[in-house]
Amino acid sequence: MSQHQPSDHLEDLHEAECLRLLEEGSLGRIGAVVRGHPVIFPVNYVAFDGAIVFCARRGGELETAAANATVAFEIDGVDNIYHEGWSVLTIGRCVHVTDPVELDQIESSSLSSWAGRGRDLLVRISIDEISGRRIRHHTP
Amino acid sequence: MSQHQPSDHLEDLHEAECLRLLEEGSLGRIGAVVRGHPVIFPVNYVAFDGAIVFCARRGGELETAAANATVAFEIDGVDNIYHEGWSVLTIGRCVHVTDPVELDQIESSSLSSWAGRGRDLLVRISIDEISGRRIRHHTP
Repeated sequence: MSQHQPSDHLEDLHEAECLRLLEEGSLGRIGAVVRGHPVIFPVNYVAFDGAIVFCARRGGELETAAANATVAFEIDGVDNIYHEGWSVLTIGRCVHVTDPVELDQIESSSLSSWAGRGRDLLVRISIDEISGRRIRHHTP
Repeated sequence: MSQHQPSDHLEDLHEAECLRLLEEGSLGRIGAVVRGHPVIFPVNYVAFDGAIVFCARRGGELETAAANATVAFEIDGVDNIYHEGWSVLTIGRCVHVTDPVELDQIESSSLSSWAGRGRDLLVRISIDEISGRRIRHHTP
């Protein structure tokens, strides 16, 4: 049930809509905890088979923050003209992808890191919780 | 000093450039910890006088997560054509804004919440740490 107030322009998105937006996207943000405080990392990703996959550099700050950790993953989109937008938030656990079949699947996906080479460690985030919201001011 | 590899297309942004991007922006994301795991909240904000200010609903999940907490605050921008982008990350502590002079300053700023009325609690995040990165593939 929605927790929003009647005065809100907010509506909750159904899980199917959240998953569709996740599968359409390619840029998201990982929320993790580093040295005791929250940090946000933008990443390229793909979503399929009920999980999110991104690449990280071995030994880098992102890999260290995500190693076997529960993280947040967020995507959003905005319409600056109408002051509207939507966001999807998932919570899940990170694991390194080592299964050869899964690695092949990901290799043939559209996943690439804009940041350059060397990000050869693939990390999967399970989607344990998912929610989404949309701000709408006008009738579509 | 940059921690990036020679193969990277990543460059670190100077602090002045990070602050300029923060002051130009109006939509960011707060990274906090809720019930022991990271969460990301998109928010409208203004940045001035070395701090970030956003509005929250009293007793809402965001206010609870941010109350006197150290949070991450992130903004980013992307160029889908060139696969380029930038991001700025700050870490700081949240406090409610109660000083009447500061409240007046914020009232006369461009701050508004797209999500609707009822978000009348103003929260300031100090900028204790700031860093930024840019991915660039072509010469501007």
